[in-house]
Amino acid sequence: STVIKCKAAVAWEPNKPVVIEEIEVAPPQDGEVRIKIVATSVCHSDLYHLFENIHKDGFPVVLGHEAAGIVESVGPGVTEFQPGDKVIPLFLSQCKECRFCKHPKTNVCEKSCEIRIDAMSPLDSRFTCKGKKVYQFSGTSTFSEYTVVRQINLTKIDPAAPLDKVCLLSCGICTGYGAAVNTAEVKGSTCAVFGLGAVGLAAVMGCKNAGAKRIIAVDTNPDKFEKAKVFGANEFVNPKDHDKPISQVLSEMTNGGVDYSLECVGNVEVMRSALESTVQGWGVSVIVGWNMHEFSGQPIKLITGRTWKGALFGGFKSKDGVPEMVKAYMNKKLMVDEFITHNLTLDQINDAIEMMKHGKCIRTVLNVSPQ
Amino acid sequence: STVIKCKAAVAWEPNKPVVIEEIEVAPPQDGEVRIKIVATSVCHSDLYHLFENIHKDGFPVVLGHEAAGIVESVGPGVTEFQPGDKVIPLFLSQCKECRFCKHPKTNVCEKSCEIRIDAMSPLDSRFTCKGKKVYQFSGTSTFSEYTVVRQINLTKIDPAAPLDKVCLLSCGICTGYGAAVNTAEVKGSTCAVFGLGAVGLAAVMGCKNAGAKRIIAVDTNPDKFEKAKVFGANEFVNPKDHDKPISQVLSEMTNGGVDYSLECVGNVEVMRSALESTVQGWGVSVIVGWNMHEFSGQPIKLITGRTWKGALFGGFKSKDGVPEMVKAYMNKKLMVDEFITHNLTLDQINDAIEMMKHGKCIRTVLNVSPQ
Repeated sequence: STVIKCKAAVAWEPNKPVVIEEIEVAPPQDGEVRIKIVATSVCHSDLYHLFENIHKDGFPVVLGHEAAGIVESVGPGVTEFQPGDKVIPLFLSQCKECRFCKHPKTNVCEKSCEIRIDAMSPLDSRFTCKGKKVYQFSGTSTFSEYTVVRQINLTKIDPAAPLDKVCLLSCGICTGYGAAVNTAEVKGSTCAVFGLGAVGLAAVMGCKNAGAKRIIAVDTNPDKFEKAKVFGANEFVNPKDHDKPISQVLSEMTNGGVDYSLECVGNVEVMRSALESTVQGWGVSVIVGWNMHEFSGQPIKLITGRTWKGALFGGFKSKDGVPEMVKAYMNKKLMVDEFITHNLTLDQINDAIEMMKHGKCIRTVLNVSPQ
Repeated sequence: STVIKCKAAVAWEPNKPVVIEEIEVAPPQDGEVRIKIVATSVCHSDLYHLFENIHKDGFPVVLGHEAAGIVESVGPGVTEFQPGDKVIPLFLSQCKECRFCKHPKTNVCEKSCEIRIDAMSPLDSRFTCKGKKVYQFSGTSTFSEYTVVRQINLTKIDPAAPLDKVCLLSCGICTGYGAAVNTAEVKGSTCAVFGLGAVGLAAVMGCKNAGAKRIIAVDTNPDKFEKAKVFGANEFVNPKDHDKPISQVLSEMTNGGVDYSLECVGNVEVMRSALESTVQGWGVSVIVGWNMHEFSGQPIKLITGRTWKGALFGGFKSKDGVPEMVKAYMNKKLMVDEFITHNLTLDQINDAIEMMKHGKCIRTVLNVSPQ
C-alpha cells in the first residue's frame, strides 16, 4: 500500500478552531491497520485536549476517538484484520498478553499506558500535513478520512451494523453503561447518576438494564431530565433548586444515602459530592468522568464503610466488549440512536465542537465517508 | 444498686495530664450495665481527644475505650448480662435491630451514630466528680474502676480469658487485624502495611493469617521492624531511606504496586501514598487510621482501577466478633501478649499516655482492679 492523501481536521494549536486540511497518511507498519473512517462523533475528551491546555506540546494533532470504519489495508504481521472488515477503533487497547489483560478483574491493558488518554500518542504518527508531522491522539485520531491504529486498538464488529450509529460504542456509551453494569453492580438498589451528557445517560441506561430500583438523575440543566427519562431515570434532582448540599438532599430522599453513585461530569467537586451522597456501610461511588485536578475528601466517609472506585471505558475489556455491545444494539437490548441529536459532515466539525462545548447536543455524528 | 464511689482518671481540660480523682458512678439505667474495669489500655483515640482539641467542650471527661471487666450490676430490661459476667466494652455498638446490623456487609450500627468515636458521648453520663457532671467518652470511659455502658456496647466473653490480655481486643488489635482479614481479603497477595503501632502490627498479623505472600512493613522508625517480623512481615521499608516517594519505591519493589495497602497511621498524606502504592487494575487501599483532616488525590488513580475503602473496627460486627477473637486467642490462633510492652496501674496512667504520645510503647496495660 502507498501513502493516501485525504481530508482531516487538524488542530494546529489549543483554543482555536480545527482546520480541514489535506493530509498524507502513510501505510500501516508492523502490527498496524489503516482504516477508512465512515462516521465519528465528538466526545468531551477531544475538547479536553483542545481547550484545557494540559499538553501544550501536543499540537498539531488530529483529534477524535469515537468512530467506526472499514479496514483499508493492514501492515506486516496483522492476521486478525482484512481489508473490508467493519471495525471500531479503541482508545483503550487490549493486547491479551499483558498481566492486566490476563486478569479477569480489570480492563487496563499495559500497552495502553504507552498511549495516554489525556495526551497525544508518543507513537510515531503516520500523519503529515504541509510537510509537518501531525500527532496521533489517544491511539486513534478519527477526525480524518483515513487513520492508522495498532491492531490492539481495533476490534471487528458485525458487518450488518450501521457504522453511523455504532460509532458511539467506541467511547461514551460503553463508558457510562459499563460503569453501572460492570463496576457498580447496581441490581435492586438505589442509584444516583451525576451529569446527564452521553456518558451519564448511558449510565442511567446501565442502571436500568442492570435492575436498579430507583434511578435518580442529577443535573444543573433541567432540560436534560426529559431525555434521562427515556433511558430509565425515575427521579430528577437539580442541585440549583436546593440551598442544601446535594449530598444532603439525596440523603434525605433515600433515608441516609444512595447505594451507588456514578460521577459522569468529570468535576472534582462533584466527585466528592457523589461519594458523600452514598449511604454509610455499603455505599459505592464510581468516578466515570475525567479530570486532571485533585479531589479531596474526609477519611471518615470511607472509614464508615463507603467505597470509592473508578471506571475506565466502563470496565469493558475493549476488544471483547465492544462487539458484544454492538450485538446488544442489533438485538435491541441497548439504545444508541437516542443519543444522536445531530448529524453533520466532517467539514462541519467546528459546529459540532461548539455545540458540545456549550452543552447543546448529546452526540453529534459526523459522516466522514460513505459506508 | 446504689451509687459507687471509686477512682477514675479525669481529664479536666485538653493538653493537661489527667487527674486521679474519686468519682461517683450512678446505677445503670434502662438497658445499661455497670462494670468493674479489671484492665484497660491506652489507645491513640484517647490521645486524639486529649491533644487534638477538636472538641474543646468535651471536658471534663473520663477517657478510655480499650478494656475488659466484670459486670457489677444491670439496669432495668437487661437480660443478656448478669453480675459476674466477664465482658469487653465496645465503642462500636451492635444493636442487632437497625438496617446496618441486619445487613451482612457492614458493622456500622445506627445506634453508634449517637456516640461518635471522636466526641464525648451526648448520652447522659453516670459520672460525677466534685459535684460536676463528667462526660462519658466513646460510649465506654474505661479509665475508671467502674463505668456504665449501654448493653449494645458490651459483649460477654469466655470466663477463662485473662482480662489483662484480652482487653486489647476491645479496639486496636481487632481494628488492624480485621482490616486485613475482613475488608481487604489479602489471600495470596502482596500487601503493604503503613505504620507499625498496635493497629499496624495487628494488620500485619491479619495479612499473615489470611495467607498474604509478601507483607511489606513501612515505618519511619526502623526500631519497629523487629516486632513486625514477629507478627509476620517479611519485607521492611523506611521511607526516610529513600529520596523517591514511598509509592514509587513500593511500585519498583513489586513491579507496579502492591495488591493491598493498609493505612494504619491516621495521616492524610500517608493515606494518599498508600492508595498510590497499589497496582492499577485491582489494587485496594484500606484506610484504617483515624484523622479529621482531609485527604486529596488524583481521579486517574481510581479511574485506572484502584479501590479506596476504609474500615471501622476492622469490619467486625462488634458484639459477635470480639468473643470470636477472644476464642481465637485462647486457641493460640492469635497473638495478643506480644503487643504488651508495659504493665502499669491506673495511678500511673500519665506515664502510659506520655509513652504512647512519644511512640515508646506498643501497648501499655493498666491494671485497674483485681480479676
